[in-house]
Amino acid sequence: MTKIDRARSILQGPDLLLVSPSADLAYLIGYAGHASERPTLLAIPREGRARMLMPQLEAPRLPALEDVDVVAYDETDDPYARLADALGREAPGSVAISNEAWAALLLGLQKAWPSARFQAATPLLRELRMRKSAREIEALDRAGRVDDAVFEELRSAGIQGRSEREVGRMLEDMLRDRGLTDVWQIVAGGPNAASPHHFSGDRIIAEGDAVVLDYGGSLDGYQADITRTVHVGRPGDVFVHVYEIVRQSQEAGVAASGPGVRAGEVDRAARAVIEAAGYGDFFIHRTGHGIGLEIHEEPYIVAGNNLTLELGMTFSVEPGIYLPGRFGVRIEDIVVIVEAGARRLTDATRELVIL
Amino acid sequence: MTKIDRARSILQGPDLLLVSPSADLAYLIGYAGHASERPTLLAIPREGRARMLMPQLEAPRLPALEDVDVVAYDETDDPYARLADALGREAPGSVAISNEAWAALLLGLQKAWPSARFQAATPLLRELRMRKSAREIEALDRAGRVDDAVFEELRSAGIQGRSEREVGRMLEDMLRDRGLTDVWQIVAGGPNAASPHHFSGDRIIAEGDAVVLDYGGSLDGYQADITRTVHVGRPGDVFVHVYEIVRQSQEAGVAASGPGVRAGEVDRAARAVIEAAGYGDFFIHRTGHGIGLEIHEEPYIVAGNNLTLELGMTFSVEPGIYLPGRFGVRIEDIVVIVEAGARRLTDATRELVIL
Repeated sequence: MTKIDRARSILQGPDLLLVSPSADLAYLIGYAGHASERPTLLAIPREGRARMLMPQLEAPRLPALEDVDVVAYDETDDPYARLADALGREAPGSVAISNEAWAALLLGLQKAWPSARFQAATPLLRELRMRKSAREIEALDRAGRVDDAVFEELRSAGIQGRSEREVGRMLEDMLRDRGLTDVWQIVAGGPNAASPHHFSGDRIIAEGDAVVLDYGGSLDGYQADITRTVHVGRPGDVFVHVYEIVRQSQEAGVAASGPGVRAGEVDRAARAVIEAAGYGDFFIHRTGHGIGLEIHEEPYIVAGNNLTLELGMTFSVEPGIYLPGRFGVRIEDIVVIVEAGARRLTDATRELVIL
Repeated sequence: MTKIDRARSILQGPDLLLVSPSADLAYLIGYAGHASERPTLLAIPREGRARMLMPQLEAPRLPALEDVDVVAYDETDDPYARLADALGREAPGSVAISNEAWAALLLGLQKAWPSARFQAATPLLRELRMRKSAREIEALDRAGRVDDAVFEELRSAGIQGRSEREVGRMLEDMLRDRGLTDVWQIVAGGPNAASPHHFSGDRIIAEGDAVVLDYGGSLDGYQADITRTVHVGRPGDVFVHVYEIVRQSQEAGVAASGPGVRAGEVDRAARAVIEAAGYGDFFIHRTGHGIGLEIHEEPYIVAGNNLTLELGMTFSVEPGIYLPGRFGVRIEDIVVIVEAGARRLTDATRELVIL
């Protein structure tokens, strides 16, 4: 059964599945496309062949596809008219469209097919992508090992006296040198580390700083993601205490993960450690997110998520404590659900590293 | 008048303007946000204060804003309920939403407000952004000069014997060293250059290759974009002939540009040169695109676009000829409309460079 056929099999409700440039598209046809003012859209009808609508000038990028016909439009064509012609049928009664499609595209389709009912396709598509194959787990494993190696390399290179931005650039270069693309990083030093999604800036990393290092990129389409928190110079007692709580919280989250466990229970296990230590108000985000072709995807490890974890699911476990104006600590690994529980795909040391 | 007030002034039809993470958002509040499963949305009602809906953990990234109230939600909140509460009013009758908002977001809003009429906001918002201020033109000018300088640096460094990917990495490093972020490149050698949006690959650049180099990035949020085509070793007569046609076409496009001219006329002027030489079928894309906070924005230089060019508009002029299986040539500069016509913001040599 091809992936296109598997996608079609989830079309129990909708007559037509529309997939825009996204990890869903990459999963289905090995080409992610790119969202722009020129629409790109894979249309999978319940019956009949799938069609790939795309700009003529990008058509050479598309890999050869046995079960998809390409509908390439020119700069002055009306792309929606070309797609409707190619589908060659009356307007669909119901359409599922991928989450990341542009609102402008959806508005255009709603105008073209005023009687059609539209729904989000992602709850359907996530079913296809949530349980990784052995090949996918191997790709995530390789990506994770790059992140581990880069942590060791950065430790050796040193960060004191450099700006967050410089350290970020070093991280990106190290990741690229090991084959990652679409690299990214968060380097947050001192009080900046109390902001979980800080942009690396001009602040110079100095003696006495805790520094959160969160980075990754893409290897053959699969994502790497790790966070470690290091300390420059001798840490104070409060930092050492908070670091140890986060470390134990992360261990508890990983230990709680396994087949048959609900995603929300993993969040609960990690959060309980931090709450018991009296820092519950300072763990201000969910415990983790799924990872694969996307850096954030299902399953989300968040309170209230009753999704049952199954073999092959991959996600982050990344509790943190953020003390505004002072410092932050986060420790993150990627894990995969295996028979015995969860196996780490990133595994750089979690002992406190003092630089 | 603040930018928020200017945005409100275009709300002649809609009761509510919704702006998702995009260049529109960056233009309005100096923060682009980032699209993810956690919704971020600027809501500007016709009356009352603007609200910024965003995840609590990203709130520290937001610059201080006088005329916007932040509605930060926690991981387990319903973001749409929080936004509706904050707007504190009955459902809007009509809503304009920015092009790049996710379809999932629009479907969520359509469910929450079933009687509201939705329209695309971008035709309204482009009015705000199309005519650049002196400060914006200065930013694009500086970005363009980086692209010019990198072309000279690459000429000196040499490209023969390297793969497209290696040359692409060199370009990206050179661009970053000069301060650009979000850098990108297309390096297409030999027959690959016949694909305008080629992905740089493993092909080794060798004697006899024409190589299209198209690259840029972001400087203080404003985009750089340039294309030059070079030849490795002594070119044949056909290549020299085709190069000269493209060069003249690009000159004609720039010469035709000026205040009061329609965008489609610039396309016509550039295309006429290529058609007259008998290569019309091999110029397979529009002549150019607007540029600013986005790499592609209004005005599009395409047949049939009757938009009248005005002072301060900035766009690319980039004709090309693509001979499948043989080679491609494209020459691209960014120009700004001035009283006297158009002034180039990129201006590396357009004489044929032989490496």
